[in-house]
Amino acid sequence: MAAELLHTNPGVSPHIVVNDAEYTPEPSWRTWLIGKPLSTADAPHQAIGKLVGLAVFSSDALSSVAYGPQEMLVVLAAAGMGALGISVPISLAIVGLLLILTLSYEQTIHAYPGGGGAYIVARDNLGELPAQTAGAALLTDYILTVAVSISSGVAQLVSAYPALFPYRVWVAVGLVLFIMLINLRGVKESGTAFALPTYFFLVMIFVTVGVGLVRYVMGSLGGVVAPPPLEVVHTTQAVTLFLILRAFASGTTALTGVEAISNGIPAFKEPRSRNAGTTLIWMAIILGSLLLGVTFLGHQIGAIPSESETIISQLARTAFGGRGILYLAAISATTVILVMAANTSFADFPRLSALMAKDGFLPRQFTYRGSRLVFSRGIVALAALASLLIIVFQASVTALIPLYAIGVFMSFTLSQAGMARRWRKIGLIKPGEEIREPGSVLRYDKKWLSKILINGFGAICTAVVMMVFAITKFHDGAWVVLILIPLMVLAFLAIHHHYRDLAQQLSLETYAPSLPNSRHRVILPIAGVHRGSLSALHYAQSLSHDITAVHVSLDPDDAEKLKEKWFMWGDGVRLVVLDSPYRLMLEPLLMYIERIIALRRPGETITIVVPQFVPKKWWQNLLHTQTAFLLRMALIFKPGIVIVEVPYQVL
Amino acid sequence: MAAELLHTNPGVSPHIVVNDAEYTPEPSWRTWLIGKPLSTADAPHQAIGKLVGLAVFSSDALSSVAYGPQEMLVVLAAAGMGALGISVPISLAIVGLLLILTLSYEQTIHAYPGGGGAYIVARDNLGELPAQTAGAALLTDYILTVAVSISSGVAQLVSAYPALFPYRVWVAVGLVLFIMLINLRGVKESGTAFALPTYFFLVMIFVTVGVGLVRYVMGSLGGVVAPPPLEVVHTTQAVTLFLILRAFASGTTALTGVEAISNGIPAFKEPRSRNAGTTLIWMAIILGSLLLGVTFLGHQIGAIPSESETIISQLARTAFGGRGILYLAAISATTVILVMAANTSFADFPRLSALMAKDGFLPRQFTYRGSRLVFSRGIVALAALASLLIIVFQASVTALIPLYAIGVFMSFTLSQAGMARRWRKIGLIKPGEEIREPGSVLRYDKKWLSKILINGFGAICTAVVMMVFAITKFHDGAWVVLILIPLMVLAFLAIHHHYRDLAQQLSLETYAPSLPNSRHRVILPIAGVHRGSLSALHYAQSLSHDITAVHVSLDPDDAEKLKEKWFMWGDGVRLVVLDSPYRLMLEPLLMYIERIIALRRPGETITIVVPQFVPKKWWQNLLHTQTAFLLRMALIFKPGIVIVEVPYQVL
Repeated sequence: MAAELLHTNPGVSPHIVVNDAEYTPEPSWRTWLIGKPLSTADAPHQAIGKLVGLAVFSSDALSSVAYGPQEMLVVLAAAGMGALGISVPISLAIVGLLLILTLSYEQTIHAYPGGGGAYIVARDNLGELPAQTAGAALLTDYILTVAVSISSGVAQLVSAYPALFPYRVWVAVGLVLFIMLINLRGVKESGTAFALPTYFFLVMIFVTVGVGLVRYVMGSLGGVVAPPPLEVVHTTQAVTLFLILRAFASGTTALTGVEAISNGIPAFKEPRSRNAGTTLIWMAIILGSLLLGVTFLGHQIGAIPSESETIISQLARTAFGGRGILYLAAISATTVILVMAANTSFADFPRLSALMAKDGFLPRQFTYRGSRLVFSRGIVALAALASLLIIVFQASVTALIPLYAIGVFMSFTLSQAGMARRWRKIGLIKPGEEIREPGSVLRYDKKWLSKILINGFGAICTAVVMMVFAITKFHDGAWVVLILIPLMVLAFLAIHHHYRDLAQQLSLETYAPSLPNSRHRVILPIAGVHRGSLSALHYAQSLSHDITAVHVSLDPDDAEKLKEKWFMWGDGVRLVVLDSPYRLMLEPLLMYIERIIALRRPGETITIVVPQFVPKKWWQNLLHTQTAFLLRMALIFKPGIVIVEVPYQVL
Repeated sequence: MAAELLHTNPGVSPHIVVNDAEYTPEPSWRTWLIGKPLSTADAPHQAIGKLVGLAVFSSDALSSVAYGPQEMLVVLAAAGMGALGISVPISLAIVGLLLILTLSYEQTIHAYPGGGGAYIVARDNLGELPAQTAGAALLTDYILTVAVSISSGVAQLVSAYPALFPYRVWVAVGLVLFIMLINLRGVKESGTAFALPTYFFLVMIFVTVGVGLVRYVMGSLGGVVAPPPLEVVHTTQAVTLFLILRAFASGTTALTGVEAISNGIPAFKEPRSRNAGTTLIWMAIILGSLLLGVTFLGHQIGAIPSESETIISQLARTAFGGRGILYLAAISATTVILVMAANTSFADFPRLSALMAKDGFLPRQFTYRGSRLVFSRGIVALAALASLLIIVFQASVTALIPLYAIGVFMSFTLSQAGMARRWRKIGLIKPGEEIREPGSVLRYDKKWLSKILINGFGAICTAVVMMVFAITKFHDGAWVVLILIPLMVLAFLAIHHHYRDLAQQLSLETYAPSLPNSRHRVILPIAGVHRGSLSALHYAQSLSHDITAVHVSLDPDDAEKLKEKWFMWGDGVRLVVLDSPYRLMLEPLLMYIERIIALRRPGETITIVVPQFVPKKWWQNLLHTQTAFLLRMALIFKPGIVIVEVPYQVL
């Protein structure tokens, strides 16, 4: 049986054996909750195609059609009804920006086939600090996306069922945990589960815009019946450049989520880059046409931005001529897509945190794949952080929204700037040469100059948008993010410092095997003289001949009896009795051990042999003082002390 | 310095040394909270005199004057106004029972100078099961006394300040914790702190009764002005024997707390038994005269039992001729004494649990004296259990009261029966002979027959009262106690069984030192080849030559690199690589170790050497997987496995 267990692998060395008995997990409650464990070899079967990929990675971006145009109109409304018409040219500008971003990310996806979000592009082209900033900005934004999208979905639910209001925070947290659970089942399963609502939304919004356009062309569209009143502003502002910039910035919230696919490339089936790139282009086309369609039709029907009725609702009831079944379908699809947006973050946050952990800027545990091959710890961390935000902000969308979008535009800017720098490097190398970087390979490209211009212009536009956000929303809460991101970067650098330090200290490069130990001192704390302590004594004798048994005495009479017993059974080993007039067990022992440590010579090893009583049943542990456990907890942080626990089982 | 640390004590043996460097605790937040630690040698200075003893141990009994007569009148009122007059003869009967109990406990105190509550008397005279029943009954009652007395005090507070009602549970828990803290400071300090309110109550209740009696003698007392209405009962009952028994039983709640002094003898100054006995007699005289005085005057003034005004209140405003300053003082003193009653339980519960723990029926930890020489764990346990009861029952006195008093009368019955049995034994021994029992010494006493009669009669009376309680209050909650006490007894017996078993198995009586270990197999789990794992390897080599390094492989490429490194650095030690296709770290290793255990031969020792990484700062632990810690948790319950943790510190 032993031979079967340890058979020698002749290819390597006579001393190195490989074990063929693989551990296979048994079914448990986890199996029921998230499905049976997947072997590492199953990974390729978990990759997703373009259709599921579009559902997983675009729900964040597409859901923003539900609020982007609205945000823009709210800003314009400050300049009066007449200014609302400017929305159409501003939308064209936003779609222009979308075009630049799409071109940039399409190029990035092909240049970085292993995942090419802002973090990787900044890391390979701009350096450590910009990369960590991009990482912090994106992680923050993913957490906020979950909190905001779930909260807004719950807000819609609460307006339909006001009785739910007192439970809104727990409904929201429950939804976060539900989406977490689906994602723990694996990317393929979550993609399939969430594809249906995403496509339902896509169909409904296209039907709405399509019907509206057809009726517009046929001249039968008309205006909104009984539009909500325009909210009164004290003084109508003039249409200044600043106002237009603010409207532009607000409208660009529709572009959040565009970066999602670039972070998620490894989730796609091979050829990964091509599949991911095609999905990105589909998404951009859908997003752009919906943005233009909604803005144009909204203007035609005279939709009014309002807290009490959304632009989408006004558009749908005008297009469908009332609040019929199609209107209800369009509205409920919009509600569901807002919740779905969270799913995109659940696909990207764990991937990005795993990338950063692999580089040593986040705890290594984020790189471990769970039983369903997803980065489970990232998924759980995202759910926990988003739930915390929801609880702290009481699921209020108004309170959360100002924190949102800055991170995305910070990462856009860094990504575009990084790509521009990459083209510059490419312009400098000779045709035929190759430079290998951690995430990509650089080859000469004669169009490098025009590509620099596109990415440079994109970087400037997104930087402006980010600044407008930071300034106009500073008081409402944007300052939180502007403090948080540098703090996160500092934490990442501290973690990196630790890992780098550790690797250096563990390194064998300058290692010389140490001298044989000159002395091995063993300390054996005993509470009494019995079979348990004697079995520990025998073990201690196999370690060294220099043993000191130590007893903490609370009662002089008991100590006297113990001394007599030790004289009888202690095999001649020295016994130290520590009086404890304040009836403390642990402290006198620790004091004694610390004095022994202080006397230590170089090369001397100190081992504490602790007799560990192991009862038959767990509750019997409550009947014992657990001194051994407390001793271990107190000593584990002392340098150079080895702790040996010799168990004594009661059978 | 080493010589100073370990100087030889020539009186014992050349191998046994005694350490003279005593550990003295440093001031900490505990010092601030409960005072500076007291040395074991200080114990005699912590004993209390008769005056403080009366305050500590009688507040429970004396406070019952505030509700005992009331409870009796409520029962009698069911038979109409006319029946209330029977209260005076019933009170005389209760005082008669008090007399018997006092005689019995006075004798017990002298017979059992080391503490002679029902537990000890039953243990020495009736056997294990009755003793454990008495212990369970008393412990239950002490917990209930705290919950009931604090809840009733808070109820009084809430009727004065109704705004406190929503916070009543937390106010009650806060009071429990406050009394706990005072008691943790030591019995002397808590006695002194609580003596003032106790004596204030005594003075006020004597003034009330005294003024009432003087005015009665002078004929100027009169009746209660505007008494509360008698609560309507559907059918006026006849004055049956059962009704009188119920009234008698309800009135005897005034006797709860009489046993307190007998459990607390060790708290008194020497001569302990005499001091405790004198205090008991004082308490009985005070309690008896107050009971008679309150009942007699209550009858004279025509006091009506009512939910809306207590008998004490009616008596006080009639005696003092209105709601003046004296009335207010009497009422607030009554409120305070109700809370004080909890303090008696805090003095007795820890002592009784320490006694039971010493006998091995409760966890040993209850016998440890804390830094202020009190049984801190008992005090904390009582506070925790009472708080739990208060939270579960929402501080409702009505819900808690039916559980109360059965335990006390069960312990009275067992104590009296035990004393009767003791007199029987004493009657059988010859004059001049002595029999030593664990708690007392038996000597012939010629009055043994009359003493049997007193205790036997007392046992019958208290048994009847207990039965009446159990039957009349069964539905209201007494069944909880009647289920709880047997369960507690079962738990005590299970604990005892464990300790007895353990002592047998650890005993050296039939012990023969084991053979030298025939084989010592060492397993060394490694995550990588670095200075940490090599330092563990060197330690392992000092244990045995039979070492197997084990690596759990998640990735074949990494495993290949590790094998090469081990070939270079592994000193020829065998390496087993365990493939883990489901990416689990711990489970494959445990499976492997269990297979090795299954192959073990007799006398073979298996040691797991775990390299333990110890970071500089605590937060850096979060950056590591703690596999070593989890491995230890999983292996500590496996028989015969020794775990060695070899630390590797990063400096």
